[in-house]
Amino acid sequence: MKSVQIGICGLGTVGSGVYNILQRNAELINCRANSAITVTHIGSRRDNPLCDIGQTRISRDIFEVARDPDIDIVVELIGGTSVAFDLVMMSIKHGKHVVTANKALIAENGAEIIAAAEQRGVIVAFEAAVAGGIPIVKALREGLAGNRINWLAGIINGTSNFILSEMASKGRAFPDVLAEAQAKGYAEADPTFDIEGIDAAHKLAILASLAFSIPLNIEGIFIQGITQLQQLDIVYARELGYAIKHLGIARQTDEGVELRVHPTLIPEASVIAGVNGVLNAVMVDADALGSSLYYGRGAGSEPTASSVLADIVDISRTLDNPPSSWVPTLGCPLTRLVEQEMIPVTNIETCYYLRFSMFDAPGALSDATKIMAEAGISIEAIIQKEQPVGIDYVNVIVVTNRIPERLLNAALSKIEQLSSVQGSVFIIRLEHLDQ
Amino acid sequence: MKSVQIGICGLGTVGSGVYNILQRNAELINCRANSAITVTHIGSRRDNPLCDIGQTRISRDIFEVARDPDIDIVVELIGGTSVAFDLVMMSIKHGKHVVTANKALIAENGAEIIAAAEQRGVIVAFEAAVAGGIPIVKALREGLAGNRINWLAGIINGTSNFILSEMASKGRAFPDVLAEAQAKGYAEADPTFDIEGIDAAHKLAILASLAFSIPLNIEGIFIQGITQLQQLDIVYARELGYAIKHLGIARQTDEGVELRVHPTLIPEASVIAGVNGVLNAVMVDADALGSSLYYGRGAGSEPTASSVLADIVDISRTLDNPPSSWVPTLGCPLTRLVEQEMIPVTNIETCYYLRFSMFDAPGALSDATKIMAEAGISIEAIIQKEQPVGIDYVNVIVVTNRIPERLLNAALSKIEQLSSVQGSVFIIRLEHLDQ
Repeated sequence: MKSVQIGICGLGTVGSGVYNILQRNAELINCRANSAITVTHIGSRRDNPLCDIGQTRISRDIFEVARDPDIDIVVELIGGTSVAFDLVMMSIKHGKHVVTANKALIAENGAEIIAAAEQRGVIVAFEAAVAGGIPIVKALREGLAGNRINWLAGIINGTSNFILSEMASKGRAFPDVLAEAQAKGYAEADPTFDIEGIDAAHKLAILASLAFSIPLNIEGIFIQGITQLQQLDIVYARELGYAIKHLGIARQTDEGVELRVHPTLIPEASVIAGVNGVLNAVMVDADALGSSLYYGRGAGSEPTASSVLADIVDISRTLDNPPSSWVPTLGCPLTRLVEQEMIPVTNIETCYYLRFSMFDAPGALSDATKIMAEAGISIEAIIQKEQPVGIDYVNVIVVTNRIPERLLNAALSKIEQLSSVQGSVFIIRLEHLDQ
Repeated sequence: MKSVQIGICGLGTVGSGVYNILQRNAELINCRANSAITVTHIGSRRDNPLCDIGQTRISRDIFEVARDPDIDIVVELIGGTSVAFDLVMMSIKHGKHVVTANKALIAENGAEIIAAAEQRGVIVAFEAAVAGGIPIVKALREGLAGNRINWLAGIINGTSNFILSEMASKGRAFPDVLAEAQAKGYAEADPTFDIEGIDAAHKLAILASLAFSIPLNIEGIFIQGITQLQQLDIVYARELGYAIKHLGIARQTDEGVELRVHPTLIPEASVIAGVNGVLNAVMVDADALGSSLYYGRGAGSEPTASSVLADIVDISRTLDNPPSSWVPTLGCPLTRLVEQEMIPVTNIETCYYLRFSMFDAPGALSDATKIMAEAGISIEAIIQKEQPVGIDYVNVIVVTNRIPERLLNAALSKIEQLSSVQGSVFIIRLEHLDQ
């Protein structure tokens, strides 16, 4: 049995998980990898009390690990995109295979990193970068290798999903749940990356590249966070038979690729609508398989480490094989990836949930619905509730049929100009996830 | 790019799907496999109008394919366990890699087949044998390679799930839905394999071997079909917050392995309870990852072919590599599989749904609950409905806490001896799927 030496850089939440699982399940893991896998070098600025590394060599300078001639695989778990990038590039230069959980790094610098790895003849693996412990990279690259992917939609940020789930199940307000998520360590002290959708966009860029054989690109992604969502939207959505989830959506169309991250109404009866709390799920629609779904823990020490270990096992088993027999990093070799048109969100076509505030006077609603009818927008559902005495404005909720977003926007501008309408129309996109 | 020649044996539903997808997605598949994959020989007793094979060589004797010196991979899609076994063994003898969708063959003859393949240095792959297009074999063998699996529970027979879903959503009776399933081609003319749980047991044996590194074995599996389920059980279960699903369950305990197929109450709020119709899903609980779920189409032409193609791509990419670098067929090499004690169903411990018919007289219920209390069984929920005038017997429904099945059985014998109780107590096992 061949020996494979691992260097772990970053001994935080995930790094300690990787180390601990490798000790606990050593026999099983070695059996699956047909290799004797050992962590022989750790790079970390500080020790981790959750991880008893015994006599394992530890360097305070993580670059020592990349330079260690005995190391076969460098595991990058320090996060960020500056030092991590240098570490990964140096590791590749020294002929090390690389495993990383760093979605920002792969989404932003993946092209350069993968090119360097292909040239040097080493593997770069990042199962843990998307949806934590769910083996979704493997499913897309290998499990669905015979399929053309039509679209995918994922709950790929646990913090946002936790916040929306709490708002939905307990009627809590956004700032209140966010504070709890921060206190529990789900959200960072600066939660912008989570709640504004940046983290989800990084993951979506990776998923889209794997699904559609396009280069990694975060530029063309439409990103909308969950900060504008109100409790009442969740209530109205439910009344109409929908849940609201923060989804990353990637869709192949005849005109190009849609990549978007935004709150989305989805049918409450769909399986993905039942994914609550910090859990993640990715739904994939493919030409041969149809729809399939992958669900599990998207973050945390051991769930994320589980994906890191899957990569370590794959690499250990195959590192002596010719690179032409490895699974191509993005499903196809870099040279076979083809740039596609990124469709701006104004050009997408979907259904919409609209909410606006309207003066409760005879004819007011008919003015608004007339504008929609003239724009070719059909109303699939509408709610207008009687208001308590003394309140003159009512909330009107409309669910539309499938229409181009630019047609909707034109109609909404006209509606917003009606004297009976107060403020602007709040829209949430709605997907049936069935085509 | 190397050339890989495929021989397809059986040009029925799945075989035609494999052929057609290989034509349609040829460029993408070849890119992912880094190989030029071509079907050069088909073995089939008849042509298939859904499949235009052009000038591809076709033999009416399928064994011609196994003997064809140019074929690299034989795809066995004829079904059954006699001719299919001979075909697979002959293919291996001639040095062909084998891909099969045949769960009965792998569950019953897998040990012999895999041993022959290991000895001859060829790959046997069977992603399509379990849960159709869902890449669950890959998830267990590779995606969760770092994990010790605690348990798994799957909806792995589409026909049974279709019948239960229709009974639940439309209030239809069992024989009525079964007739429709047969008319639609979901169920075989002889539906015994589906509704009595044999097909699910074949798949469970494969999943359990992968999960627990035990030899393939269908002998110790407890199998109960869905034919005894009544509409009223589904209604009562729902009233208590549960759905009834036909599950295959495999669980690692300190004493050994539990393998069982039976109708099961599961919490209606769980994601797997939302899996309806002919869809399949497998939930896996693992030490590092926790619970994850894999959901999609478990049968049909192209979904099943999707898994066959994933195996073909994997094999094509790696067939020139040394066998020691291949993913071991059952996760670990055959010699590393360890036989475990199969726990008889009387020794399992779970929760139970009980239904019995009782004479509606003062003290009758208290006699029954006293027996349960004396046996240490606590009642988590109970339903007894007022009956129309003139009906003397009432249905009593009880949900118990977690208890050993043999304790339950002893208590039930006593309850059945009560003069107020009519007939026997009907039990359905109940799992919370949370530990």
